[in-house]
Amino acid sequence: MSQDNLTALLLKPKDLQLVQTKIPEIADDEVLLRMDCVGICGSDVHYWQTGACGHFVLKEPMVMGHEASGVVAKIGSKVKNLKPGDRVAIEPGVPCRVCEFCKTGRYHLCPDIAFCATPPFHGNLVRYYKHAADFCYKLPDHVSMEEGALLEPLSVGIHACRRGGVTAGASVLVLGAGPIGLVTLLAARAMGASNILITDILQSRLDFAAKLGANHTLLVTRDLSEADLVRKVHELMGTHPDISIDASGAQATVRGALLATKSGGVAVLVGMGSPELTVPLAGAVAREVDIRGIFRYVNEYPIALSMVSSGLIDVKPLVTHHFSMEETLQAYETARRGDGIKVMIHVQPRDANNVKKF
Amino acid sequence: MSQDNLTALLLKPKDLQLVQTKIPEIADDEVLLRMDCVGICGSDVHYWQTGACGHFVLKEPMVMGHEASGVVAKIGSKVKNLKPGDRVAIEPGVPCRVCEFCKTGRYHLCPDIAFCATPPFHGNLVRYYKHAADFCYKLPDHVSMEEGALLEPLSVGIHACRRGGVTAGASVLVLGAGPIGLVTLLAARAMGASNILITDILQSRLDFAAKLGANHTLLVTRDLSEADLVRKVHELMGTHPDISIDASGAQATVRGALLATKSGGVAVLVGMGSPELTVPLAGAVAREVDIRGIFRYVNEYPIALSMVSSGLIDVKPLVTHHFSMEETLQAYETARRGDGIKVMIHVQPRDANNVKKF
Amino acid sequence: MSQDNLTALLLKPKDLQLVQTKIPEIADDEVLLRMDCVGICGSDVHYWQTGACGHFVLKEPMVMGHEASGVVAKIGSKVKNLKPGDRVAIEPGVPCRVCEFCKTGRYHLCPDIAFCATPPFHGNLVRYYKHAADFCYKLPDHVSMEEGALLEPLSVGIHACRRGGVTAGASVLVLGAGPIGLVTLLAARAMGASNILITDILQSRLDFAAKLGANHTLLVTRDLSEADLVRKVHELMGTHPDISIDASGAQATVRGALLATKSGGVAVLVGMGSPELTVPLAGAVAREVDIRGIFRYVNEYPIALSMVSSGLIDVKPLVTHHFSMEETLQAYETARRGDGIKVMIHVQPRDANNVKKF
Amino acid sequence: MSQDNLTALLLKPKDLQLVQTKIPEIADDEVLLRMDCVGICGSDVHYWQTGACGHFVLKEPMVMGHEASGVVAKIGSKVKNLKPGDRVAIEPGVPCRVCEFCKTGRYHLCPDIAFCATPPFHGNLVRYYKHAADFCYKLPDHVSMEEGALLEPLSVGIHACRRGGVTAGASVLVLGAGPIGLVTLLAARAMGASNILITDILQSRLDFAAKLGANHTLLVTRDLSEADLVRKVHELMGTHPDISIDASGAQATVRGALLATKSGGVAVLVGMGSPELTVPLAGAVAREVDIRGIFRYVNEYPIALSMVSSGLIDVKPLVTHHFSMEETLQAYETARRGDGIKVMIHVQPRDANNVKKF
Repeated sequence: MSQDNLTALLLKPKDLQLVQTKIPEIADDEVLLRMDCVGICGSDVHYWQTGACGHFVLKEPMVMGHEASGVVAKIGSKVKNLKPGDRVAIEPGVPCRVCEFCKTGRYHLCPDIAFCATPPFHGNLVRYYKHAADFCYKLPDHVSMEEGALLEPLSVGIHACRRGGVTAGASVLVLGAGPIGLVTLLAARAMGASNILITDILQSRLDFAAKLGANHTLLVTRDLSEADLVRKVHELMGTHPDISIDASGAQATVRGALLATKSGGVAVLVGMGSPELTVPLAGAVAREVDIRGIFRYVNEYPIALSMVSSGLIDVKPLVTHHFSMEETLQAYETARRGDGIKVMIHVQPRDANNVKKF
Repeated sequence: MSQDNLTALLLKPKDLQLVQTKIPEIADDEVLLRMDCVGICGSDVHYWQTGACGHFVLKEPMVMGHEASGVVAKIGSKVKNLKPGDRVAIEPGVPCRVCEFCKTGRYHLCPDIAFCATPPFHGNLVRYYKHAADFCYKLPDHVSMEEGALLEPLSVGIHACRRGGVTAGASVLVLGAGPIGLVTLLAARAMGASNILITDILQSRLDFAAKLGANHTLLVTRDLSEADLVRKVHELMGTHPDISIDASGAQATVRGALLATKSGGVAVLVGMGSPELTVPLAGAVAREVDIRGIFRYVNEYPIALSMVSSGLIDVKPLVTHHFSMEETLQAYETARRGDGIKVMIHVQPRDANNVKKF
Repeated sequence: MSQDNLTALLLKPKDLQLVQTKIPEIADDEVLLRMDCVGICGSDVHYWQTGACGHFVLKEPMVMGHEASGVVAKIGSKVKNLKPGDRVAIEPGVPCRVCEFCKTGRYHLCPDIAFCATPPFHGNLVRYYKHAADFCYKLPDHVSMEEGALLEPLSVGIHACRRGGVTAGASVLVLGAGPIGLVTLLAARAMGASNILITDILQSRLDFAAKLGANHTLLVTRDLSEADLVRKVHELMGTHPDISIDASGAQATVRGALLATKSGGVAVLVGMGSPELTVPLAGAVAREVDIRGIFRYVNEYPIALSMVSSGLIDVKPLVTHHFSMEETLQAYETARRGDGIKVMIHVQPRDANNVKKF
Repeated sequence: MSQDNLTALLLKPKDLQLVQTKIPEIADDEVLLRMDCVGICGSDVHYWQTGACGHFVLKEPMVMGHEASGVVAKIGSKVKNLKPGDRVAIEPGVPCRVCEFCKTGRYHLCPDIAFCATPPFHGNLVRYYKHAADFCYKLPDHVSMEEGALLEPLSVGIHACRRGGVTAGASVLVLGAGPIGLVTLLAARAMGASNILITDILQSRLDFAAKLGANHTLLVTRDLSEADLVRKVHELMGTHPDISIDASGAQATVRGALLATKSGGVAVLVGMGSPELTVPLAGAVAREVDIRGIFRYVNEYPIALSMVSSGLIDVKPLVTHHFSMEETLQAYETARRGDGIKVMIHVQPRDANNVKKF
């Protein structure tokens, strides 16, 4: 094994550097991975620019990266589900396995979960990375390393749809057509939503969403009042949405979700920009519109893989930019500018581990 | 049948009068009821004082009363579940029966529901009142007319607990020890909540709640900070509550509910004072604390009756004041002052229709 | 309006005749329909051949037909959702609207439901038929009358999948590739099932199922032991199915469903051939495989329509035979022989009411 | 620490001996327990008499015991939830923590779960026993060691009620008034079931059940036909039960459960006597009566403890016989004869570790 272990280390806000670190030793239930693809997420850019995301704050230098795939280089003595050479998608959070949350099937809420690139835990934008074997999912030959990395954001979209109860015949309003809004759209459609409207402030994103299967799009302009937004949503959809999914986190979109949703429906909130919001809660209460937040995902990686593997969801169009690991700073800069949808960093040469070219 | 049909009519805000009205004719599927007990609810006092409650506004004179029981005087030609002389509790809302909400078991959200003493629909604080037969529930001999009337607020408490998922071993925080907080407490305990803390700003109410079975009480004083409230709740309960039920509607208690609830738990909101609230939504989202509003109740009248009838819930202590119908204004004045818990108006002489004295 | 009211009347077992009956009068909440398409279902053939289906027994002559669409000819005085000329799909069961089942959103279990062509209720294989307006669903222009009629079996498939909890990533075993097995397959796929295996005793049906989207097919031969069937299912699927749906009703397939399903999964049973079955219940109990029966559908007509209308489900390939109403006996004979999948009877000339030719 | 490690070892069917074994070494996440109370369960008697229970078969000598409590003697280096001297209830199954079942909150279905006194795993009827620290639950001072041991069967009853959806106002039929039937009755009542009928073939058990809170009892005699059983259940309850829980495992009671349950209700089956049963499945299917099996319990130990600790459930009356560990064979003989309800073996002198005498 090469001793090169190039690592994308965030030393402090705005100071992301490529440095060499030691290749880690693995425990009995772990695997050592030769990393391949690592996508950039909005939270990565946040940490890079501000040193924080929500209530998580960078205190020590931290390796970046959590939307990732790799190839198994070595396995621990007790590992049975994988063997060297296996191409895997990496679910980035490993929980404690003993607390109440772990035992009741909500391990993503485990207070001791070690999650890649969330302080104080290192990520996997590095040549060699070790991980719990049971949170690595073997990719079939026809699934690319890029798709393996994209299972991460897709899992968020599937979690949002599962929490919202999206099923056959659902009318779904998605607010925000960024990467999370788009994976949510893909998941909703594949789960049977027959009437999906997506909103955004950029027409280019809406055009992209329409190609991915949105039934309706709505450009939100500055001069559109809240009441008009809601009215337009209802008009375009021909009904009140059963489920509204806010993938934007702004106060305006959260308010829109609460106001537009059908009585007895669900408003799903996927992350918030601001800790405090002023919202029309009384109306949501009186109409029994349930409000459900989303924190990452739980048990959705296998689902995401099966959806991609079976062809029911195609995430490939989401990748709009490619960079080598050596170009990591350019990649982050591209992601920061918001060009395109998903920026992918290749720790290995492109297609080196793909059976079929991406 | 007597021609006396004394009626408590709210002509305009602050103008509640006892007048005579015509005894109604019944349809084939209706019953005519000789009213017995009618409780006063917070919303009744709101209409009386301000002419409005939430987004419902008094536009025409309206008969008051919706927490009620009566005796069947006459039945329509198609009525099979009741006969003259039956003592019944009256579920005050009759839905359209044909819309999506009615067909999916959420008839309380039916936009066309006719609900007693909610504009533009008349209530049942009147000598004779007609109602859909299938929304009248026959009381067993050992259940009093007062208990029959109290099924209305109890149904709200049961609905709150069912929406919150209260079950065996649940830790439940109830915010507010007014009538709704107390019925919620009774319901939670009877459904298996083993650890209940109730808060209020009045010690007298907390003392009452402790007698009804609260495991812990917490007096909320002006100088108690939000963080301290949450900390004290967690200390007293020895855990974070699985379910928090706000029975107060103030911004402070809604905030407390969101902050105190365990990750992955549920915050139930039973009505709101103000249409807009500023709340720490980001934290609730990141901890997947679900927020569920309550609008009245649905399919809970039979449950409430079975709980009272079987002795699993005792609502009798809630009645602290009794007035005759002729004393209606005094009764409303007493309710407005917030003396005691539940003020009961007797349209018939007390115990006239009770097999066992109340 | 023409006075011709040709009616397909089952006088007694094996005695199906075309006779004239009186055009019905409508009530305030009803519509009179000029019937268009009426499909033939397995139960229709049962009544025709044996005079019974399950515990329902023919005692009086009964009009056949329940998979149907028509055009509104006249509306009752209180009807608001429809107008003359509207093309509609007809949900064939009209419940009492007042019982516990109707109020809790399970109106299909209403003991007083009047269901077309289930004794003692007449069906709609007739020129003019009246129905409750709220159980008629207006078809968009691009949806054909044939598809309107097919919403009936499709609703069964959707109900089976909803009861089974089919969602993104589900592995689903469908036992039986007759009409119900096929609509179940279509529904499962559209709801996100990523791994579907369908079984049958006829290769031709499996070939058809493969074209409709089954991932795997398994021909069940006489010499295949139960243990081998289960083993083959597991091998082909690469996993134990989360959900097994028996669309055959034979003891062998019910047993297969119980044995093959993953621990903690669901076995859905869509109708039974025999009242009593000998089944390996202990294993299902010890592995917590839930067993859920299906009775028709509830609140699924609007879902079925939205799935067809949006293009997420294509039911058109299911129609393999067309007959005019005058050829009703031939149509029934064709259905009895089991040729093809779905036999459609046209009460009006084909495509007379279709905007786009079928 | 004493070197005495008396152990109740089942060498082969009918050959249960008290022998000395080595005191085990603990791992970092384990505790060593000085055992106190160990109850005898029906399955223990089965293994003793036949060497098998269900599909589990004794192949090597096995230590008996799984309904148990003990005192922490030593803790592993990573244990934080317990300290020496803590009195604990022991949840007897420790799952693998990495499989799909463990991650989705259904760890009781983990195929690799190590469960006390289920071949090939040893039980805890022994002086010193080691266990995963997180599956030991600290008892408050006022809860006795006997109650700690009884959390095991109580967890089964709670699991049955949770799987059945028992909640406020439920009508519940319990078939069989043995230990499992009785804990199910206690759990159902504490979860809000307002109308409980329990059946048995012994009047003495029914009398006991009535004292524990059953609303109705029904003695099942040999000459009672199946139809009459169902009719009597409906008559006595005044309704069809929402939920039927079979705690007997006989074909007759399983059949009774399916036949008696309300349409749309749930029949819960807690273990089976025979691998194959002949049942009236068609009726259950047509009435959408769901059938749900029970395998042990999952996440119910903390619930059971909170219910006992809070006083909502009193399990103390269930203990009818006490034996010292040295009298183990007599204790098993008593359990085999079916005298009384629960036979308790004291590994320590009675009340040695109880703050309050039992």
